[in-house]
Amino acid sequence: MRDGGLVAIDWGTSNFRAYLLDAEGRVRDSATTGDGILQVEGGDFERVLLSHCGGWLATYPEAPVLLSGMIGSRQGWHEVPYCQCPAGPAEIAQALVLRRTKQGRALCFVPGLSVASEDGGRDVMRGEETQILGAIEPGDGERRLICLPGTHSKWVEVEGGRVSRFSTFMTGEVYGALVKHTILGRLMDGEAEDADAFAKGLALADRQGGFLNHLFRVRTAGLFGELPGQSLAAFLSGIAIGHELAGAFAEYRPSSVLLIGSEALSRRYVQALARRGIAAATAPSDAAARGLYRLARARGGVR
Amino acid sequence: MRDGGLVAIDWGTSNFRAYLLDAEGRVRDSATTGDGILQVEGGDFERVLLSHCGGWLATYPEAPVLLSGMIGSRQGWHEVPYCQCPAGPAEIAQALVLRRTKQGRALCFVPGLSVASEDGGRDVMRGEETQILGAIEPGDGERRLICLPGTHSKWVEVEGGRVSRFSTFMTGEVYGALVKHTILGRLMDGEAEDADAFAKGLALADRQGGFLNHLFRVRTAGLFGELPGQSLAAFLSGIAIGHELAGAFAEYRPSSVLLIGSEALSRRYVQALARRGIAAATAPSDAAARGLYRLARARGGVR
Repeated sequence: MRDGGLVAIDWGTSNFRAYLLDAEGRVRDSATTGDGILQVEGGDFERVLLSHCGGWLATYPEAPVLLSGMIGSRQGWHEVPYCQCPAGPAEIAQALVLRRTKQGRALCFVPGLSVASEDGGRDVMRGEETQILGAIEPGDGERRLICLPGTHSKWVEVEGGRVSRFSTFMTGEVYGALVKHTILGRLMDGEAEDADAFAKGLALADRQGGFLNHLFRVRTAGLFGELPGQSLAAFLSGIAIGHELAGAFAEYRPSSVLLIGSEALSRRYVQALARRGIAAATAPSDAAARGLYRLARARGGVR
Repeated sequence: MRDGGLVAIDWGTSNFRAYLLDAEGRVRDSATTGDGILQVEGGDFERVLLSHCGGWLATYPEAPVLLSGMIGSRQGWHEVPYCQCPAGPAEIAQALVLRRTKQGRALCFVPGLSVASEDGGRDVMRGEETQILGAIEPGDGERRLICLPGTHSKWVEVEGGRVSRFSTFMTGEVYGALVKHTILGRLMDGEAEDADAFAKGLALADRQGGFLNHLFRVRTAGLFGELPGQSLAAFLSGIAIGHELAGAFAEYRPSSVLLIGSEALSRRYVQALARRGIAAATAPSDAAARGLYRLARARGGVR
């Protein structure tokens, strides 16, 4: 690789993903570790960066370094203000914040996005904006609906190449807390995949009663042996994802959805969307690297 | 007190409440401790019973002993099958299960209730059925809607003096898990009462998006300083109780509600119900003792 590339880092709460890109945006090398920001002892982020990317930084002293994700939050290395929606590559690149390492290397932190709702409340994301930019084609001006399932699932509307609005659903984190810290976990025997039990949960979510009522059905399904212990987690997952979809559909009325997420989780969402007659495409797994490359170009930092 | 009374025990997951009643159902003595069934070491329930009620049992050797609540569950002293709805004093008294202590004293365990929903799922209660019998007047044949807020809130329809159907909402347990085991607790500073923040949560619950989306507003309200850390728990409580009410109202369409619960929690529900224009009455705190007395009489066990 000649000089003129990019060191692109997607640094979240639980994971550290680094990519060495060439001037055309091709991935030349990468590193993925569990050094999420909450795992970094004493907040010594520079040490972690150098331990994983020190070689790249030494070999390509002119390559810009861009970092996205929770590394730019209050709990991260440097808190970067949110960029207001609507926001696309130009607005986000404009809001990049420069900081230098102790050794003097320039680092560009990507801002997260915030959006205000009609009732005055707000929603935020950090990191997903970069994956989104990497998942849509430059020049695509159509209205797109994107779902990033996970701990805090995001449903995002993109129009004219810019994020116009979005909503967060605490699906993954609530699911985890229910399994680990409530009575619902007691009768569970692992968290195996079970498409039928998952579908049963999706169907229940469409009925009246609401989330807090439907949850208790995981308890009684176990008590009365309607489902075996191995299938209760999939049933709960269906209830949770079903409620997420109901909320997101009321807000966004999608005709198709682009999924950005892990393969296992995306498979569940594809099933849940198909049940509603909605086609889903999945984004490539290196969307964050692509997004950071687009931002670096928008900033004029990649020659 | 002459003989002919009753030893009435409401023994739940977290608490042990015992009452010595005379033949007319008046409370002559009582004991409340934290010896819930999950706190009893080695499952030695007889030891706990004797340590709190041994004196009463010795003094009134002919008094029936009735026990309701989770003591009759799989995790309790003796598992009692659920009684199917519709069920009133006659059906429940008929299903009492007799067991003797090692010393030979007869104990009558009260069954819980179960109900089947249209889609084949089930719901259950243990202990609440007894409180309900104690809270409604004998001979009252009107349709009543009763709410027992708590860890697992119950909404119960009573017709002709019998429980016709009911729904469980995991409101209290989910609230606790969210505060203790998710990111929502991080920005909280205690769990003070704040009627305005609570009302804000109730109002949010009526908007679209759904429970999993609304939860994240507790996070952003803290992040952007829309609410102080002391008020975030009340905001979350409003969201949770608001969603419970939305689900219960869709199912039961109440015109008035009888609340059976702690004073602090009942106050929140009175506020939430008033917002929907619904009047709420509150039941006396010894409803369980009254219910056990009614069951003993229905069984013919109190002279």
